[in-house]
Amino acid sequence: MKIWMIGARGTIATATAVGTVAAQKNLLPLEGVITERAPLDETEGLPPVSEISFGGCDLRPGTLAEAALSCTSTVSIFSRAVLDSVTPVLEEMPITQGILRRAGAAVEALTGPERLELFQESASDAVQRIQQDLEEFAGDEAAVVINVASTEPLCDPALFSWSIEEFEQAVEADDPRLPPSALYAYAALRAGHPFVNFTPSIGTGLPALVEYAKQRGIPLAGRDGKTGETLVKTALAPMFAARALTVEGWYGTNILGNTDGQVLSYSENAASKVASKQGVLEQCLGYSPAGQVRIDYFPPLVDHKVAWDFILFRGWGGHKMRMQFTWEGTDAVLAAPLLIDLARLVTVAHQRGESGAIGALGVFFKTPEGSNEMNLQRQFDQLVAWCQRVPADAGHPS
Amino acid sequence: MKIWMIGARGTIATATAVGTVAAQKNLLPLEGVITERAPLDETEGLPPVSEISFGGCDLRPGTLAEAALSCTSTVSIFSRAVLDSVTPVLEEMPITQGILRRAGAAVEALTGPERLELFQESASDAVQRIQQDLEEFAGDEAAVVINVASTEPLCDPALFSWSIEEFEQAVEADDPRLPPSALYAYAALRAGHPFVNFTPSIGTGLPALVEYAKQRGIPLAGRDGKTGETLVKTALAPMFAARALTVEGWYGTNILGNTDGQVLSYSENAASKVASKQGVLEQCLGYSPAGQVRIDYFPPLVDHKVAWDFILFRGWGGHKMRMQFTWEGTDAVLAAPLLIDLARLVTVAHQRGESGAIGALGVFFKTPEGSNEMNLQRQFDQLVAWCQRVPADAGHPS
Amino acid sequence: MKIWMIGARGTIATATAVGTVAAQKNLLPLEGVITERAPLDETEGLPPVSEISFGGCDLRPGTLAEAALSCTSTVSIFSRAVLDSVTPVLEEMPITQGILRRAGAAVEALTGPERLELFQESASDAVQRIQQDLEEFAGDEAAVVINVASTEPLCDPALFSWSIEEFEQAVEADDPRLPPSALYAYAALRAGHPFVNFTPSIGTGLPALVEYAKQRGIPLAGRDGKTGETLVKTALAPMFAARALTVEGWYGTNILGNTDGQVLSYSENAASKVASKQGVLEQCLGYSPAGQVRIDYFPPLVDHKVAWDFILFRGWGGHKMRMQFTWEGTDAVLAAPLLIDLARLVTVAHQRGESGAIGALGVFFKTPEGSNEMNLQRQFDQLVAWCQRVPADAGHPS
Amino acid sequence: MKIWMIGARGTIATATAVGTVAAQKNLLPLEGVITERAPLDETEGLPPVSEISFGGCDLRPGTLAEAALSCTSTVSIFSRAVLDSVTPVLEEMPITQGILRRAGAAVEALTGPERLELFQESASDAVQRIQQDLEEFAGDEAAVVINVASTEPLCDPALFSWSIEEFEQAVEADDPRLPPSALYAYAALRAGHPFVNFTPSIGTGLPALVEYAKQRGIPLAGRDGKTGETLVKTALAPMFAARALTVEGWYGTNILGNTDGQVLSYSENAASKVASKQGVLEQCLGYSPAGQVRIDYFPPLVDHKVAWDFILFRGWGGHKMRMQFTWEGTDAVLAAPLLIDLARLVTVAHQRGESGAIGALGVFFKTPEGSNEMNLQRQFDQLVAWCQRVPADAGHPS
Repeated sequence: MKIWMIGARGTIATATAVGTVAAQKNLLPLEGVITERAPLDETEGLPPVSEISFGGCDLRPGTLAEAALSCTSTVSIFSRAVLDSVTPVLEEMPITQGILRRAGAAVEALTGPERLELFQESASDAVQRIQQDLEEFAGDEAAVVINVASTEPLCDPALFSWSIEEFEQAVEADDPRLPPSALYAYAALRAGHPFVNFTPSIGTGLPALVEYAKQRGIPLAGRDGKTGETLVKTALAPMFAARALTVEGWYGTNILGNTDGQVLSYSENAASKVASKQGVLEQCLGYSPAGQVRIDYFPPLVDHKVAWDFILFRGWGGHKMRMQFTWEGTDAVLAAPLLIDLARLVTVAHQRGESGAIGALGVFFKTPEGSNEMNLQRQFDQLVAWCQRVPADAGHPS
Repeated sequence: MKIWMIGARGTIATATAVGTVAAQKNLLPLEGVITERAPLDETEGLPPVSEISFGGCDLRPGTLAEAALSCTSTVSIFSRAVLDSVTPVLEEMPITQGILRRAGAAVEALTGPERLELFQESASDAVQRIQQDLEEFAGDEAAVVINVASTEPLCDPALFSWSIEEFEQAVEADDPRLPPSALYAYAALRAGHPFVNFTPSIGTGLPALVEYAKQRGIPLAGRDGKTGETLVKTALAPMFAARALTVEGWYGTNILGNTDGQVLSYSENAASKVASKQGVLEQCLGYSPAGQVRIDYFPPLVDHKVAWDFILFRGWGGHKMRMQFTWEGTDAVLAAPLLIDLARLVTVAHQRGESGAIGALGVFFKTPEGSNEMNLQRQFDQLVAWCQRVPADAGHPS
Repeated sequence: MKIWMIGARGTIATATAVGTVAAQKNLLPLEGVITERAPLDETEGLPPVSEISFGGCDLRPGTLAEAALSCTSTVSIFSRAVLDSVTPVLEEMPITQGILRRAGAAVEALTGPERLELFQESASDAVQRIQQDLEEFAGDEAAVVINVASTEPLCDPALFSWSIEEFEQAVEADDPRLPPSALYAYAALRAGHPFVNFTPSIGTGLPALVEYAKQRGIPLAGRDGKTGETLVKTALAPMFAARALTVEGWYGTNILGNTDGQVLSYSENAASKVASKQGVLEQCLGYSPAGQVRIDYFPPLVDHKVAWDFILFRGWGGHKMRMQFTWEGTDAVLAAPLLIDLARLVTVAHQRGESGAIGALGVFFKTPEGSNEMNLQRQFDQLVAWCQRVPADAGHPS
Repeated sequence: MKIWMIGARGTIATATAVGTVAAQKNLLPLEGVITERAPLDETEGLPPVSEISFGGCDLRPGTLAEAALSCTSTVSIFSRAVLDSVTPVLEEMPITQGILRRAGAAVEALTGPERLELFQESASDAVQRIQQDLEEFAGDEAAVVINVASTEPLCDPALFSWSIEEFEQAVEADDPRLPPSALYAYAALRAGHPFVNFTPSIGTGLPALVEYAKQRGIPLAGRDGKTGETLVKTALAPMFAARALTVEGWYGTNILGNTDGQVLSYSENAASKVASKQGVLEQCLGYSPAGQVRIDYFPPLVDHKVAWDFILFRGWGGHKMRMQFTWEGTDAVLAAPLLIDLARLVTVAHQRGESGAIGALGVFFKTPEGSNEMNLQRQFDQLVAWCQRVPADAGHPS
């Protein structure tokens, strides 16, 4: 199986490639991959990890090996020895040029001098270019496209009412409201590949693209990987519900040291993310407690992220009590194994003939497309049931 | 429905009685009771909260109204106005004398000068006395016996191999290894009442008593109410399992300011509790991480308890990350609504003809008797399914 | 000694009055007052606590007794019994009308229908009115004016270059840039009373008013009471300096549930406070670490405030380490005793003939006027030295 | 200057040597050394860091280079590249055999098969052997002996009443109550070298040895390096005193992953450490709050240590508030720069002719010998004053 990553030089993509190749060479264990553990490892049709290879696009030029080197000097997830061993493999992975058109000021700030030309690329040129890159990359093999690029500004609401025909007309007309994530997704679907949207950017969250995916029989998974504070929220909030304890307020603050934090310090980009983070409480609890979700850029953390949440809840006789937690994680480390799981499972869905948003994959996302379930344990149990479903069931997800 | 509480002058029992009566008089909302919320409020046969009344026994003399006054001066869960309104009702609730025999040094230290006589009471005299008290209390009505007394020392392992006949012979022979909790449970079963063990003391955890309960067609629920740190553990630990993140260590410390903390500062009594707290991780995760559970007495907290847990876990590439939480709860406030839920649900089980340990009630306990499930969400989902089961299913718990 | 509080119906003023009267009646201990403890209790000339009485102004009408009742129903710092006992005394304390002119949108939202008339009051009318109120209040006795009103928006920078003559011309001309806090301060000085600015509003932080205070021989103390997160910062940051550990980042978030939090949710008002909070680290450490100070409104906390700070520091070999703390305090409880200390000490300064900003009182403030010292312990040691200075030194503050 | 470390293969000693040599070779900055920063860097007579070299003894054989390699594989304070560069220097540093006699079961468990012979060594043989090792090591140069070995069990109280003559008789008589730390200290003094006791073991805490040090004109510094939880305590506790806030309880728990934690899991060894940690609050506050200090072994932390402290305090009107902090440090990283500071400063004291316990060095220790000051900031200010004292003052420490 081939994985094509949008944002291939970013920390998540790099950590995914380095860790997978290191595991393939038996240099490191393959940790955090649930499709390698019981009972999900028995899912029929899982592509073997040993045969995964990577490619992708980015707005910055260079090889994955160079990206790995630059990440490692700051983040040090991998030892120098591991890095040296995987470098020859990384150097051969193809990285093409991403779409800069309408990516927002924050992303534009990350790119180099080729900016001007890219700004002038039309929507249809961008789609064609990416589709071609994907065809060259995949050849006859199964491939999955995964978006791990920086978060875009919130999408214009008008796009949600478009049909696929209107979408295609907008592409032809180079409509300025079309965000890059939707163009990538469209190109992937045209090339016939499942699309996984690991970011809060809209991508295949547009009804037009879901419609198109169903027409073409291609499965989708999204949106916004659930790797930190929100993961904990969807495990903890159901506890209050299961005890009929009323959560009066839930306040959370997130500090991030990496590019992601820097991009999110632009309030237009943070809007997508905060919206994604806030919805989960209401759906886990059945009501919306007071409180906010803050995301702040804190450079000394480098690639780590720290979240502190304070929860005020009420019980017997109206008495108030409190809970707080601090989560200290590393974004790329938490995300990388989910990319492997998602690529494998969306491929299984493709084999089974499922198409459109696969709700059973909601456990991986903050905004699970195709499902209303936010409770982590129930999401997991649904995934297990989906994986164990016999081929006869194929095509009829719950 | 009548509820008879062992340890009726303790903080949990007092808070339960005051809060229930206050709710019956519309002085306070009835919070934290899951059988009052959807979907459990539709369970067939639930006794109405408006008809609950209380009684019980304690080693210290006095009325519930006096207990309420003394608790409130230190804990202040309820306002003085609420207390004044419920006093007349509390004063009429009957409290008889508990069993002191073999309760351990910590509990003995709490009792008054009547100690000597109580020490000499034989096991069979104690059982008969309690059975008689229960018969007087319940009359023809449905009643439930709930143990909320201080924790006993660990039970002698020999008792676990006894049959009910051997147990009864031991009672007759006044065997010194018989703990009070087992005598209370036996008396309750002889009087024909369901028994709920909210403490880590052994009670109906003895196979002989389960056997006896089945013979007599009486349901049981236990053991050790899950109200704080362990509640959080069983919500959080499954999150690590659902992400294939390996928990290398989980360290927890609990500081308690009330009698419970004082009793647990006797290491023989703490042993029951710590054993109860430690097992859950292994069952939620599938392996046992490094770490300890500490319980320390910290008087300035009065009835509050604070738990701090530190979790070290490993992900992609063997990278280590951390999480910590602080839980600041009030023991009696967290326990009281569970007592109401348990009394109602065990009464439903009795009506349905279920007997022995009701595994579907495991969500309420640290050591769920009759079930191997420790995962909070799965326990809750099992309870919901049990509550929704139609009468035709009665008598066939999973 | 008489204390006249601006914002007399606010929670801080109310808690100060209730607690002081309760202590005068021996209903409660007088806790948290350092001038009652060794060695500060031996300061020559301290006005006795038993003779303190209160008055003040507010934008909302009503007596202190009514304010106490309304605070207590939400915050419950004092028991109902204490409140009932002090009510007759509180009812006699005079509260006059505050200055609404140019207080900012947040404060305006708190006032009642009398708003329109107050808007039209000229600066010089406001000053004369307050001066008259003060003269009536104080009579021949020593009095201190303390600002505990809600935070104003940041002051126009132009005012910092004004001389007292220019200030007085602006008052006559009803200059719209004159903030209420400066008018109160000017009125207090004209009436001959020391002025304590417990808020981040500018007040006597204007050079013109310091000049005027010196001309008139009146001492001043300010600015912005150090009661929570910043108090901890000025105790902790010096620890890193004393170990040559480099603080790379210090991130802090504050959640507040009271009017203060609500007012600070207006970004123009928060600007004063955040500026006040941020400066301390640089002065304690000698450099400015990365990071931000957040203040968010979180209504379920009512009058409590919670701060969480995360500190990333570097040591031997460039190795990084972390510290975090959570402070859970009650604003009014922390502030009230400082008001008593400040009123007593500024009166001592007046007796000694000191005038202008008294730097030795810097320990009480986030932005200590008249001093560059931010280190809490050094500030405290300077205060002790100042208190112990013999009368011969009077008039020559360091 | 030469530094001879007892426990030279331990993590603290190793980190000190590696980091110092790396700084001498300009591979790493010299962080955390306060004698390198203003104003302490101007202390007259400081030996230059560039000329420091190391030696020492340990119960386990091998070179410092081997110790560095084994530490680094688990702790990873230093990169492999740094380690490779300093290895040749480390390999030449002499490490001799330590004293096993009466070191307690925990330390004995760390040693190898040579145990039997060492057990039989008499006290006087041990002293002579160490003295000889020291003479060979130091030659004509100034040297400092620093104890960084594992913590011993608490010392027999009888030894505190001994004179130096009685001590010397006990050495001759091979008195079994003589702990290794006292023998090391005695040997150091006989060889004429200042002794720094960075551990809670008694060492020069015995009056007999202080007397001997004064006779011989040799300065001492001790006891028990203040590097973590206690460092924070002595910065924070004075804050409560400076605000007259009564600390009702202070609970602290420490989890450690290294040999230190393992040794302290033996309760006899932990007793020394806990005693050392508990005293500071009483001296900072003037009274002793409720609460305990826990130390637990938590292997997954490897060389890191985490402390969580929970503080319950009372203010105005008796109202209770809370604070908590989590400190996540690395023991060796925090200790190493203090060793460099102490070695330099005790050498300055020696030059100045000071002898016995140097109280001005109390800022470095949990149990500051020669001083009653526990308040971190006051200790630091005293050190600065001591460093700035002109040579004329020499020999008259306050």
